[in-house]
Amino acid sequence: MKTFLYPDIKDWKNLLQRPTYDISSLTEKVKNILNDVKQNGDFALKKYTQQFDGIELNNFLVTKKEIEEAEALLSTELKQAIQTAANNILTFHQKQITNVEVVETMPGICCWRKSIGIEKVGLYIPGGTAPLFSTVLMLGIPAKIANCKEIILCSPSNKNKKLHPAILFAAHLVGITKIYKVGGVQAIAAMAYGTETIEAVYKIFGPGNQYVTCAKQLIQQNGIAIDMPAGPSEVCVIADETANAKFVASDLLSQAEHGADSQVLLISTNADLVNEVNNEINIQLEKISRKKIAIQALEGSKAIVVQNINEAINLANEYAPEHLIIACDNADTIAEKIINAGSVFIGNYSPESVGDYASGTNHTLPTNGFAKMYSGVSVDSFVKKITYQKLTQQGLHEIATTVELMAEAEGLDAHKNAVAIRINN
Amino acid sequence: MKTFLYPDIKDWKNLLQRPTYDISSLTEKVKNILNDVKQNGDFALKKYTQQFDGIELNNFLVTKKEIEEAEALLSTELKQAIQTAANNILTFHQKQITNVEVVETMPGICCWRKSIGIEKVGLYIPGGTAPLFSTVLMLGIPAKIANCKEIILCSPSNKNKKLHPAILFAAHLVGITKIYKVGGVQAIAAMAYGTETIEAVYKIFGPGNQYVTCAKQLIQQNGIAIDMPAGPSEVCVIADETANAKFVASDLLSQAEHGADSQVLLISTNADLVNEVNNEINIQLEKISRKKIAIQALEGSKAIVVQNINEAINLANEYAPEHLIIACDNADTIAEKIINAGSVFIGNYSPESVGDYASGTNHTLPTNGFAKMYSGVSVDSFVKKITYQKLTQQGLHEIATTVELMAEAEGLDAHKNAVAIRINN
Repeated sequence: MKTFLYPDIKDWKNLLQRPTYDISSLTEKVKNILNDVKQNGDFALKKYTQQFDGIELNNFLVTKKEIEEAEALLSTELKQAIQTAANNILTFHQKQITNVEVVETMPGICCWRKSIGIEKVGLYIPGGTAPLFSTVLMLGIPAKIANCKEIILCSPSNKNKKLHPAILFAAHLVGITKIYKVGGVQAIAAMAYGTETIEAVYKIFGPGNQYVTCAKQLIQQNGIAIDMPAGPSEVCVIADETANAKFVASDLLSQAEHGADSQVLLISTNADLVNEVNNEINIQLEKISRKKIAIQALEGSKAIVVQNINEAINLANEYAPEHLIIACDNADTIAEKIINAGSVFIGNYSPESVGDYASGTNHTLPTNGFAKMYSGVSVDSFVKKITYQKLTQQGLHEIATTVELMAEAEGLDAHKNAVAIRINN
Repeated sequence: MKTFLYPDIKDWKNLLQRPTYDISSLTEKVKNILNDVKQNGDFALKKYTQQFDGIELNNFLVTKKEIEEAEALLSTELKQAIQTAANNILTFHQKQITNVEVVETMPGICCWRKSIGIEKVGLYIPGGTAPLFSTVLMLGIPAKIANCKEIILCSPSNKNKKLHPAILFAAHLVGITKIYKVGGVQAIAAMAYGTETIEAVYKIFGPGNQYVTCAKQLIQQNGIAIDMPAGPSEVCVIADETANAKFVASDLLSQAEHGADSQVLLISTNADLVNEVNNEINIQLEKISRKKIAIQALEGSKAIVVQNINEAINLANEYAPEHLIIACDNADTIAEKIINAGSVFIGNYSPESVGDYASGTNHTLPTNGFAKMYSGVSVDSFVKKITYQKLTQQGLHEIATTVELMAEAEGLDAHKNAVAIRINN
């Protein structure tokens, strides 16, 4: 981790620059796969599953038997842990349901909004180095709370034509019944356009590699919604002189182990602490199996020492991290001043990993500075809100002149007439 | 308007097909303008304003004097109307503010969400055939409620280098102080990338022609958020035998006059009513100044007669209209069954034009079937929701085993370690 001492505010932008990934070179390749699946359905899915994953599959749907078998393959302890996490995620997300509130804006003019679950949604769970069953909970639980009618899940199978048992257990637990063994661009294509076995959905959620990210961008241009734009995962820790260097080092490492492109940023008011954290990182690195990945990530990471806590807050807000840990004496006060972040972890006993799994908050969060304008996934992500208005005859009288004058000024006679014809009736 | 009698459900998809616009032919041209403004700032803005609008501007910022002059140019009645509309929009949208609610998911584990206004937003108000000052209210009021710190507005000036006084009055009324006379792709570019005079924003809102739509799509791929994907405006009316043919005709016309590409759909359980409505349209057409535009729109429009009201509801849900008017005896019951629509107008005294201007609901709504997965603009569109968690030492103990087991199963040692190191401390 490179250390920067008291950088000038004019250098912040450069200092906070994230690596940019140009996915335009992938676009043609991804487009071709999308179009092939759109036109040739299951046939193309099978072809790409063989080509990219080296697996010959005749049936993508996970059977009931497979789900039952998966449950038997997991320890009671892990199943209990997944259940506990699911309970907390459910408890937190259930509070996001909004009730209908009728607002009478003028006598006889009632307006309201109602949240309605998006009918058909697709969840993508990548394969790769870690079986992300926690993401199944993070996407599946709010989808269920939102009352989405059709929830499908796609994930690439392993060489034995199976999905990881924890993925199946988590999906079963949240009530997802349609699980397909298909991954990559071809999975995104199948959910976007539909095939003989996989039904098209209206919105696609979930993480993925650069090909999947590119595919999600492209299908968005075809009118299918996606959860949010993606980028490598990241953490920012604000630490003052009261922070525990061991704890801070463990948090930075838990981000660094995600991937070689993970972004780790330490902002501190205390140069000694930064040194201590660096030492602790070297000690703790020895104990983790993904050491190589973590070292690569740390090479691209930065520690910044600032003059005072306000500068730290401003710097964090400018960076807009996906995860922000506040390891400071007055963490609560600092949290109040944060305006750009995905999820905030307050104090010494709130490591990022609790939010990644089980505190209750969602772990699908805006990366790459998108926290400046995007929220993480929540029940909101799985609903659309329809507005309604009902006017009585009196209500229409109240507002008639207003509408007529405005329509006239905008040059829209027929708009005016729709009111006038009712008033004059 | 072409009439279709009792179509078979298998023909619905074709029947409800919207015209598709291929904007890929515009992409290169739009990209070049975006890049030019990105690189050359105000110089490029001036160039394109001259080239496309035929106006030579040295200063894009609307002055205080111009705003004062605008106020004097409007009638007291229109100003009062705009004020009334603004009041209703404010009343309705203010209820969309969500309070922080702390959820204790387990003893010592507190989680919550907080809505924070997106710091910098840009509103685009097109020029063209109608001065859309109502859109200034519809975007500016929720932006102010959301507490966005920087709200800028771009709109192309007329040949006299002025903006329409009603646009300036509405902007001033809602408290927007930075108004720039620039339109089209170059305005979107300026707000996305910033120039010497116009500051870059994080999210861009507002309607526009196909070039503007294309520009918004492209800048979205560069990480700037947009309100929603766009398409031509549309209305669907569900009318039973109790509907008033005059009212229905006036509603269809008020949509048809928007533009030649406006979509108008009448669904009725009663063939006689459809005939009556068609007759009424011909009568009312004579009274409107935008008759030509309306006729063009009606040529592409459809009336569909269905077997019963449930079929009408299903058809409307399949179409997912931007605006849905329910002109039926039991309009309330029908409204309950609507799952895909932007905004719903219930009963005989709720014409679309009240929602377009003044009932209080927002008129920036999902078109083109996007109501299946997108909501209209609301205060939600101008905020992001940050999640927070704070664990006590006891709280961390409660959840430690859960997180450790899950992290281990996902193969993420450092995640596990971030908990263990705190527990063992």
